[in-house]
Amino acid sequence: MKPYESLSREEQQQELAVVRAKFEELKSRSLELDMSRGKPCIDQLDMVSDLLTVLQSPADCIVDGIDARNYGGLRGLPIAKKYFSEILGCDPECVYVAGNSSLAMMYGVVETAMSAGLLESEKPWHELESVKFICPVPGYDRHFRIAERIGIEMVTVPMTPTGPDMDMVEELIKDESVRGMWCVPKFSNPDGIIYSKETVHRLANMKPAAKDFLLMWDNAYCIHEIEGDFVPFEDIISLCREAGRPNMVFEFASTSKVTFPGAGVAVMIASEENLAYLMQFIGTELISYNKINQLRHVLYLKDKEHTLELMKRHAEILRPKFNMVLDILEQEIAPRGLAKWQRPKGGYFISVDAMEGTAKRALQLCKEAGVVMTPAGATFPYGKDPKDSNIRVAPTLPPVSELKAAMEVFCISLRIAALEKLLNQ
Amino acid sequence: MKPYESLSREEQQQELAVVRAKFEELKSRSLELDMSRGKPCIDQLDMVSDLLTVLQSPADCIVDGIDARNYGGLRGLPIAKKYFSEILGCDPECVYVAGNSSLAMMYGVVETAMSAGLLESEKPWHELESVKFICPVPGYDRHFRIAERIGIEMVTVPMTPTGPDMDMVEELIKDESVRGMWCVPKFSNPDGIIYSKETVHRLANMKPAAKDFLLMWDNAYCIHEIEGDFVPFEDIISLCREAGRPNMVFEFASTSKVTFPGAGVAVMIASEENLAYLMQFIGTELISYNKINQLRHVLYLKDKEHTLELMKRHAEILRPKFNMVLDILEQEIAPRGLAKWQRPKGGYFISVDAMEGTAKRALQLCKEAGVVMTPAGATFPYGKDPKDSNIRVAPTLPPVSELKAAMEVFCISLRIAALEKLLNQ
Repeated sequence: MKPYESLSREEQQQELAVVRAKFEELKSRSLELDMSRGKPCIDQLDMVSDLLTVLQSPADCIVDGIDARNYGGLRGLPIAKKYFSEILGCDPECVYVAGNSSLAMMYGVVETAMSAGLLESEKPWHELESVKFICPVPGYDRHFRIAERIGIEMVTVPMTPTGPDMDMVEELIKDESVRGMWCVPKFSNPDGIIYSKETVHRLANMKPAAKDFLLMWDNAYCIHEIEGDFVPFEDIISLCREAGRPNMVFEFASTSKVTFPGAGVAVMIASEENLAYLMQFIGTELISYNKINQLRHVLYLKDKEHTLELMKRHAEILRPKFNMVLDILEQEIAPRGLAKWQRPKGGYFISVDAMEGTAKRALQLCKEAGVVMTPAGATFPYGKDPKDSNIRVAPTLPPVSELKAAMEVFCISLRIAALEKLLNQ
Repeated sequence: MKPYESLSREEQQQELAVVRAKFEELKSRSLELDMSRGKPCIDQLDMVSDLLTVLQSPADCIVDGIDARNYGGLRGLPIAKKYFSEILGCDPECVYVAGNSSLAMMYGVVETAMSAGLLESEKPWHELESVKFICPVPGYDRHFRIAERIGIEMVTVPMTPTGPDMDMVEELIKDESVRGMWCVPKFSNPDGIIYSKETVHRLANMKPAAKDFLLMWDNAYCIHEIEGDFVPFEDIISLCREAGRPNMVFEFASTSKVTFPGAGVAVMIASEENLAYLMQFIGTELISYNKINQLRHVLYLKDKEHTLELMKRHAEILRPKFNMVLDILEQEIAPRGLAKWQRPKGGYFISVDAMEGTAKRALQLCKEAGVVMTPAGATFPYGKDPKDSNIRVAPTLPPVSELKAAMEVFCISLRIAALEKLLNQ
């Protein structure tokens, strides 16, 4: 196999005829496969079934003198704060235990900043002429949708193997209209990059011109190793406090990929002052979160050690899937020089940078052959990848056999899109 | 016993000395009683314990081919839509099944109107000079807090025994800046008034000047009879459709006072067009609601007939509490002419209109003696009762023995406050 770019025009034409024939054959299989979202698979869900039955009687629902069944305790059960503080290595008083969605909490923080201002704001952001957020790219589409919905302009910085390009970040924050930044610091979505210690420290030590700068620290994959043991990660809350800006950061995490997605428990971690400030707004919106679900989770997950054992079992289910995707890419795509990717050690995605100008076409072909992928461009603000190159592969949901079929379609699609591009140049 | 107002000044002074002595005696008991919120009591929570164990295995979690454990199904499980449509007498396609908090859904609708506009809006409300909501008073403090938080001006109309004063409402809606109205149509909070058929029809047939007028129909107590059988109530969604304004109304309900408060299931009911419009905003905020909890509820509550049987058992627990409060008021307060109240046949509150200018003082005295009540004024926008008269009594949480002690404090406090008022005139 030779890189497509080094083939003669004639060879490229011959190759295109071959892969198009192969594509027609794949299309005729009428596949219906979904690699679009980071959804756990049924084996992972079955594995945590004891969560369903961990509460059996009224007595089980009362802990530390608090009845988890009734209203009250808007900041979450103390036992749940303690559990999550152990997982995340932070102070229990900085933990806010909520409902099932960390995304909803992120939306709440940004929406509050816009409509009422944050603790350190001089006025609500909607009164400012311009509000911008730094968005490392590729990044998480749902972060970008929140910013877009709320009317925040997004400024991109490229991801590097050690995290966002910090020289660019430090330059951008000199502009007072740059008010925040999205981060997925461990196993970034979609690259699976772990921010280096230096990156984390530079972020914690930022001195943005905007006093109410908002560092959105979405630690979605904090214990989600696939290869190797759990790697401890620094507590951004302490680091920002030590750096003299304790109120700059809000961290988020959830059990969506530990127990049941959509029926897990989400947490927000921030300075005590920040939490007290936000409480007044959250308290306007609801009376309390589902503490029964919080209690189920703590009783089932027990502590950090027990949780990390469970995560190892998740990893055993996920590892063959990630390896299959990576192996097929190595075999089918690397020698033809059609894309680049990272080998993530955790998280839920593999990020593929296809030949420029081919991502949309490749995913359109996938769709024609019954394989749904995250739309091209989704990993960039406003859904616009300027190079039309990045593709997020989510290998967790399909069984290994289906994954293989889906990857076959994906590779053929990448090859067709690349050949079409080269021949049209 | 004679009405206090008919006593001579001397008699009033003597009476004040007597009740003050009694108050000191009550204070010395160091009570700690809470009648501040509409919280179910522990007997009610214990009664629904089978909800905890209704899901036992992975197979239990899959219904109609949908795995309730995984992401997806942002509008709720079809089986849950069907259940709630039967309870509320509406079309299943108009039901949106969500998380644990109907209040959070209400906030979401009003916040969306403000930041992005509703389906029939020409522009987002924040671009309008003035946005006003009609608030029947006394009303629900949390409705008023949402409006205040979002920057909506509140205009009050008095409640009558048949619902809000409709002549006033029909006059107010001629003003285009009047964009919405809060309603608790069945067993209103706090009066426990059921809107009459005529009131409901006049509301459904409103022709407000504002095209995007928002009728917020908080049907929180839709099946919450305390006295007598379930009384069917009209489906406001159909009525508004028939009246030619299908998109004017959003209805809300929840199981907070059917199963576990804070761990129940909330629903929003609206036209299919309205739901489709709102979905795009809700989809920005979260991936899905807790469908495991939705499924638990449907399996446990089964259908309308079974649910109404459960509500009868709730009523049996609550009825003695309501009767005790009403009996004590009859005995201690009525003959002295110190307050007026309704005898609610359902809901969670008794609304007491004390002698004008005495509510705050009476509740301050209650607090001194260890009895926490909903703050005076809470039933009015901005916490300001112009007559300083209305007091919301929430008799559901304390056991009957404690309730008796709390009511003793409450009556003595009303008597002191009234006497002080009369003597200072």
